[in-house]
Amino acid sequence: MQRLLTPVRQVLRVKRVIREVSLTPVHLLPAAHQRFSTVSAAPLAKTDTWPKDVGILDLEVYFPAQYVDQTDLEKYNNVEAGKYTVGLGQTQMGFCSVQEDINSLCLTVVQRLMERTRLPWDSVGRLEVGTETIIDKSKAVKTVLMELFQDSGNTDIEGIDTTNACYGGTASLFNAANWMESSYWDGRYALVVCGDIAVYPNGNARPTGGAGAVAMLIGPNAPLALEQGLRGTHMENAYDFYKPNLASEYPLVDGKLSIQCYFRALDKCYASYRRKIQNQWKQDGVDRPFTLDDIQYMIFHTPFCKMVQKSLGRLMFSDFLSSSSDTRNTSYKGLEAFRNLKLEDTYTNKDVDKALLKASLDTFNKKTRASLYLSTHNGNMYTSSLYGCLASLLAHHSAQDLAGSRIGAFSYGSGLAASLFSFRVSKDASPGSPLEKLVSSVSDLPQRLASRRRMSPEEFTEVMNQREQFYHKSNFSPPGDINNLFPGTWYLERVDEMHRRKYARRPV
Amino acid sequence: MQRLLTPVRQVLRVKRVIREVSLTPVHLLPAAHQRFSTVSAAPLAKTDTWPKDVGILDLEVYFPAQYVDQTDLEKYNNVEAGKYTVGLGQTQMGFCSVQEDINSLCLTVVQRLMERTRLPWDSVGRLEVGTETIIDKSKAVKTVLMELFQDSGNTDIEGIDTTNACYGGTASLFNAANWMESSYWDGRYALVVCGDIAVYPNGNARPTGGAGAVAMLIGPNAPLALEQGLRGTHMENAYDFYKPNLASEYPLVDGKLSIQCYFRALDKCYASYRRKIQNQWKQDGVDRPFTLDDIQYMIFHTPFCKMVQKSLGRLMFSDFLSSSSDTRNTSYKGLEAFRNLKLEDTYTNKDVDKALLKASLDTFNKKTRASLYLSTHNGNMYTSSLYGCLASLLAHHSAQDLAGSRIGAFSYGSGLAASLFSFRVSKDASPGSPLEKLVSSVSDLPQRLASRRRMSPEEFTEVMNQREQFYHKSNFSPPGDINNLFPGTWYLERVDEMHRRKYARRPV
Repeated sequence: MQRLLTPVRQVLRVKRVIREVSLTPVHLLPAAHQRFSTVSAAPLAKTDTWPKDVGILDLEVYFPAQYVDQTDLEKYNNVEAGKYTVGLGQTQMGFCSVQEDINSLCLTVVQRLMERTRLPWDSVGRLEVGTETIIDKSKAVKTVLMELFQDSGNTDIEGIDTTNACYGGTASLFNAANWMESSYWDGRYALVVCGDIAVYPNGNARPTGGAGAVAMLIGPNAPLALEQGLRGTHMENAYDFYKPNLASEYPLVDGKLSIQCYFRALDKCYASYRRKIQNQWKQDGVDRPFTLDDIQYMIFHTPFCKMVQKSLGRLMFSDFLSSSSDTRNTSYKGLEAFRNLKLEDTYTNKDVDKALLKASLDTFNKKTRASLYLSTHNGNMYTSSLYGCLASLLAHHSAQDLAGSRIGAFSYGSGLAASLFSFRVSKDASPGSPLEKLVSSVSDLPQRLASRRRMSPEEFTEVMNQREQFYHKSNFSPPGDINNLFPGTWYLERVDEMHRRKYARRPV
Repeated sequence: MQRLLTPVRQVLRVKRVIREVSLTPVHLLPAAHQRFSTVSAAPLAKTDTWPKDVGILDLEVYFPAQYVDQTDLEKYNNVEAGKYTVGLGQTQMGFCSVQEDINSLCLTVVQRLMERTRLPWDSVGRLEVGTETIIDKSKAVKTVLMELFQDSGNTDIEGIDTTNACYGGTASLFNAANWMESSYWDGRYALVVCGDIAVYPNGNARPTGGAGAVAMLIGPNAPLALEQGLRGTHMENAYDFYKPNLASEYPLVDGKLSIQCYFRALDKCYASYRRKIQNQWKQDGVDRPFTLDDIQYMIFHTPFCKMVQKSLGRLMFSDFLSSSSDTRNTSYKGLEAFRNLKLEDTYTNKDVDKALLKASLDTFNKKTRASLYLSTHNGNMYTSSLYGCLASLLAHHSAQDLAGSRIGAFSYGSGLAASLFSFRVSKDASPGSPLEKLVSSVSDLPQRLASRRRMSPEEFTEVMNQREQFYHKSNFSPPGDINNLFPGTWYLERVDEMHRRKYARRPV
């Protein structure tokens, strides 16, 4: 009790100018005769009802201090040179020893963010974790993170864990933004935390692993503001990637199906997003199709980098198929032959793939390539993959470049859940502006990646074997040298006989 | 694509009268010198900024068609008569055969709700599932529920699965309400789904099992409106009940610790809730303490019924300790001896327990007893327990009784996450009113429970053994007779060699 009765009672408040509006009457009670639309409505009010520019104020990325080189892995696995580095577009892959688990990853990234921003621990009113690295079927990672808040006495923090494959981070971000626009917001920040350890059994899929975590500070007046009312979502029941074998850390993957599911979800989300933004435009008197030209940067959930390049091509294909015949001939060179195809018939069409890669190359280089830096060098971070792409994008562009632009974001989680949404970057890129600060805070990403230790495929395999061996053991202290971790990293110190996990932190 | 392009484009809109307000300026950018409070602010605006009375429009409860009697279990387990029936306060326990899993439970309850309300499937814009019955570490139950929406073409439905022990349903409810008050709400309903299969190994804990699911339809102008800005939350890191053994369906439980954690969370949430409502009252010029007298009905997450009776006593104890000496002597007879104790020193004090049970008995009978009907007869439904209590309360009171009252609700999930919040029941209880319809829709709960088949402890034990045997097997069709299920129940038809699950429905 005492902790909650701290004398510090100054609270954040928000200036909001709310104008009088009156909309069509509501008919929300159950009645069979009512008809609804699957096409979501435009936002219900165009007024400043909600806090302005809710979005990402700051973000922190964590990845392991060790990696294996993909060319080394190609040799070790006796596959043709280029299979991983060119075929998948991956150069390095980060991985965790048994000393790290999903709790320690999230502890580390949250503490780093809070220390860097020097925010008081009691300034956070919501924290939600998105992950698919489940080490307990009941106890949320969020509850472990509450340890960090203990000394502040702040236990009134809403939000728990959210799971559907790689989509959990996005669900958490949406939930945080919704909270901040609701009557339940009390003026404090939200933290969105996402992280995963992606590991595969020895074989073809192993090089598509990775590990890492991202923490995002959410608030109003954000340099990366979520565009209101603009979320194109597609969900369906699919068994493309899933983890039914609870006794193993590895997923079951239907690789071909997963790529088709990803593409179909992308097409559907893009169509839905476009419909919504065009509706918004119409309300402002603008009647024209939305295309990739309206997005200055585009980031994607990244299972492997080559997949993303193809995905950007697919967005262009959507534009192409829905464009007028005039535009079609001038703006989409090399695609003419495919003008009578349907999107859903082309998921495995290699000719289309090839033509799209070529037609979209310039666009890819301008809008997306920079976002793949972390994915290329660290692999798939699952729920945090998309937000690692965002960090990479920020690390490779100046605040001036980014100012005023729209960043499109496609989030995909197998099973499946997907959304396409967007950030509007603030126009103020002046020194000391929130945008400039955000951009400089991630600018050391390449140096941090370069400072990791390169491990041999043999060492990597040994660690993977140890992970298998210790997975869900109890009563052990993980082997390993904490000096192999980055300074300030939380690690698993002990799992006791009752499976209770204790963590410690390597000094900063 | 085609499905999304249905010609039905009429959308729901909401009438909102928004008045001009202007509050204190915002200071939301990171700065170390700022001070924040752990005591959350009162709602930022007292205006009708958001849709009115967002809450529960309708709800549906599902429980298995078979149960074991607790007196039979007492004999079978060779324990003293009354150990389960009096000591725990449980009379019957529902359980599922291998033919039912968390997906089938949720399919059933959602379909029942949608069929009864005759709502079109495309009138739902958000669906979130809260559960701790994890049968896949990656794939959300939500994705399986998307099957139900397939024919409508509605795939643009936000929300995925949320997990922390028994708290997931409440987190989902909060998320749905937040969405509905945000700019991202498109006028459609939200569905909150929670369900669990609670099973324990042979031994002391086994009689505290149960199974069931609840689906809630969320919208504005609800007969059970969530009171805005009133959520007292407490989260901390505890290992009281958790599921680290992923290969088993059973949890690890530290029973004593769990009861202490529950009581501590209850005390803290109640303190936080009271502080918030008193702040709201102060803004309206009312300055007096909030007590149990201000709550007409109080429901609790129910691990077992006796626990709830004690919990109501604790709320009274909180009131007592913070009351003035005048009130203390007149209103809290029998508690005088404990006036110098601190809440946190009494979690295991049997004298206090006894005195509280006695002092709060009348209040318990009036405000809480009716809510325990389903829990008494079906056991612990984990995430859906609290909402089963809500259904029981509605089933045992008339709309007239309930009209205008406040229903307090305490949600607890081990690990731990807890919130105390409240519903304001609409004042209109006239025939055909939303409240009256809601109340009549659940009035058959006792008859439905009475229509279940009573199974012997031997049969129950055999089913529990089968659950162990088939847990995470692949390539099998669950044994059992579908005629043992209620009509209209979804069931697991097959798990194929790739662990993909197929479901079918028993005809209505």
